[in-house]
Amino acid sequence: MGPHPAVADVRRAVREALADVEKGALVLTACSGGADSLALAAALAFVAPRTGLRAGLLTVDHQLQQGSDERARTVADIGARRLGLSPAEVLTVTVGTEGGPEAAAREARYAALAEAADQLRAEAVLLGHTRDDQAETVLLGLARGSGVRSLSGMAARSGRYRRPFLHIPRATTVKACEAMGLDPWDDPHNEDPRYTRVRVRRRVLPVLEAELGPGVAEALARTAGMAREDADALDQWAESAYQNCALSDIPGSVTMAVPELEKLPDAVRRRVLRRAAIAAGAPSGALSATHVLAVDRLVTSWRGQKAVDLPGGLAAVRRYGTLILAISPIA
Amino acid sequence: MGPHPAVADVRRAVREALADVEKGALVLTACSGGADSLALAAALAFVAPRTGLRAGLLTVDHQLQQGSDERARTVADIGARRLGLSPAEVLTVTVGTEGGPEAAAREARYAALAEAADQLRAEAVLLGHTRDDQAETVLLGLARGSGVRSLSGMAARSGRYRRPFLHIPRATTVKACEAMGLDPWDDPHNEDPRYTRVRVRRRVLPVLEAELGPGVAEALARTAGMAREDADALDQWAESAYQNCALSDIPGSVTMAVPELEKLPDAVRRRVLRRAAIAAGAPSGALSATHVLAVDRLVTSWRGQKAVDLPGGLAAVRRYGTLILAISPIA
Repeated sequence: MGPHPAVADVRRAVREALADVEKGALVLTACSGGADSLALAAALAFVAPRTGLRAGLLTVDHQLQQGSDERARTVADIGARRLGLSPAEVLTVTVGTEGGPEAAAREARYAALAEAADQLRAEAVLLGHTRDDQAETVLLGLARGSGVRSLSGMAARSGRYRRPFLHIPRATTVKACEAMGLDPWDDPHNEDPRYTRVRVRRRVLPVLEAELGPGVAEALARTAGMAREDADALDQWAESAYQNCALSDIPGSVTMAVPELEKLPDAVRRRVLRRAAIAAGAPSGALSATHVLAVDRLVTSWRGQKAVDLPGGLAAVRRYGTLILAISPIA
Repeated sequence: MGPHPAVADVRRAVREALADVEKGALVLTACSGGADSLALAAALAFVAPRTGLRAGLLTVDHQLQQGSDERARTVADIGARRLGLSPAEVLTVTVGTEGGPEAAAREARYAALAEAADQLRAEAVLLGHTRDDQAETVLLGLARGSGVRSLSGMAARSGRYRRPFLHIPRATTVKACEAMGLDPWDDPHNEDPRYTRVRVRRRVLPVLEAELGPGVAEALARTAGMAREDADALDQWAESAYQNCALSDIPGSVTMAVPELEKLPDAVRRRVLRRAAIAAGAPSGALSATHVLAVDRLVTSWRGQKAVDLPGGLAAVRRYGTLILAISPIA
């Protein structure tokens, strides 16, 4: 008799995600003790010895809740004793305040994971994000309305991080834990409606599923994958178009050839202009779609407009067949 | 004292949408009598004489509700007598059943509008779809999970049709009607929860706005615009890549160069393969993303796979450095 279908699913996902890792390498899994990451740790513990890999666990104590240190030690213990993962370490971090509580906790967590992975010379760090997390991320990106990149959710691979469960429903990880006799911990933060992501999970997705059909989370996750590929392809086009359009390109002064810009489709030309403004020195966080559109009108709707002010003390002007993005007094 | 801000908004939108129409041309507006299209008709009636255009109205009697003929005559009367639009015609259609009631009514409506516009030699036909309609369309596309094209909503221009209100909230059209003393008709179909679109409007969007903030409809409409540009650019890239990769290309047998396909980013290569399958004769409606991915694996994960069956009696095989999509027994 084979394993429970949910257990088979999570193991297969981990095996496929690690297919290209060389034998003998160390793979770590980040584990909060929740169902997603506990199923991930158990799947890694099963797969690693059968594929010639070493497997360890990292759990982060964010020191934000009473008893979080004990909680983290329990997770590390499950990893070490129950699952046989080694090393199984608690990383204790101090969470700042910048960017809000969720962003600050994430920042501290990833910094600690990266440092530990470096010290342990790990080849990969697995993260337990599921298809439901991906669907939530797409909806949050959709609400920002900032284009395909913001719809592309989380990457299955990003540097050392791998997310084997992006196509696995959260419910499958819960069932897998049950079938393996593992008792996941429910983080009270996951139920706190002050967090936008929690409201998306508890209130928005259930309504979407009720009104549009039960396949919505899957459709959102599929959208994320396609949006990521589309965004990557358009970025690649924009990069080569930028090289082709830029007549000179030093920080503080970028000059672009208008006739070349005019040949590009809207979606590419706007990406090129954004790229040019950043090359000239505009801080990317402060550069809005409205800024880029105003620069774009210098190319596509030229009626002798004045300079367009940009963040970072820059301005864009059109002079004959060129578009100049430069430090403001010069422009 | 100027007009009410909502009236100014709808008039400006119509003026901008018609800026490139030559003087003396006839512009028609499709009008159901609802707030959106009534505000549109009134705005056209105001703008046209001031910009040298002729303006008329078409209203469609779908013959689906008791009294729909009288209703349509009332709308045509408002157009002719109250707004001074000429011609102001009722188009009576018979709605079939193919594709469900919404699709069949739309099919019949657009066929009648196209025929009337041809006979009247109209330069443009205006449609009253608002930002809320656009947001609904994006959510419906998102639920299908079929990529950026399905997120791109309705086009501001498509052939003879123009949609001046895609950035105008529905509430503005209601206010504009009030301010102009026009009494819109509320179609009971717009409240019937058997229609998916009605459920999106009445149940999904309000929850999104409540949980994610009041800017959601605007963000969705903005997403539509960006997704459309992205989809257009990628289609353009795929078309030129197809020309470059196709070694021979007759219906029933298309041969592609694998080394050229391998150079393309995923998003473009999959579009090229889809395009190739359709060129070979696969019916586009039956060709799923799963089919395209299976063909793609012949390019990117070649391990001597068997032929991939495709709709329309086609199959794809890899032979040496070529990918052949052809009528099945030949492939």
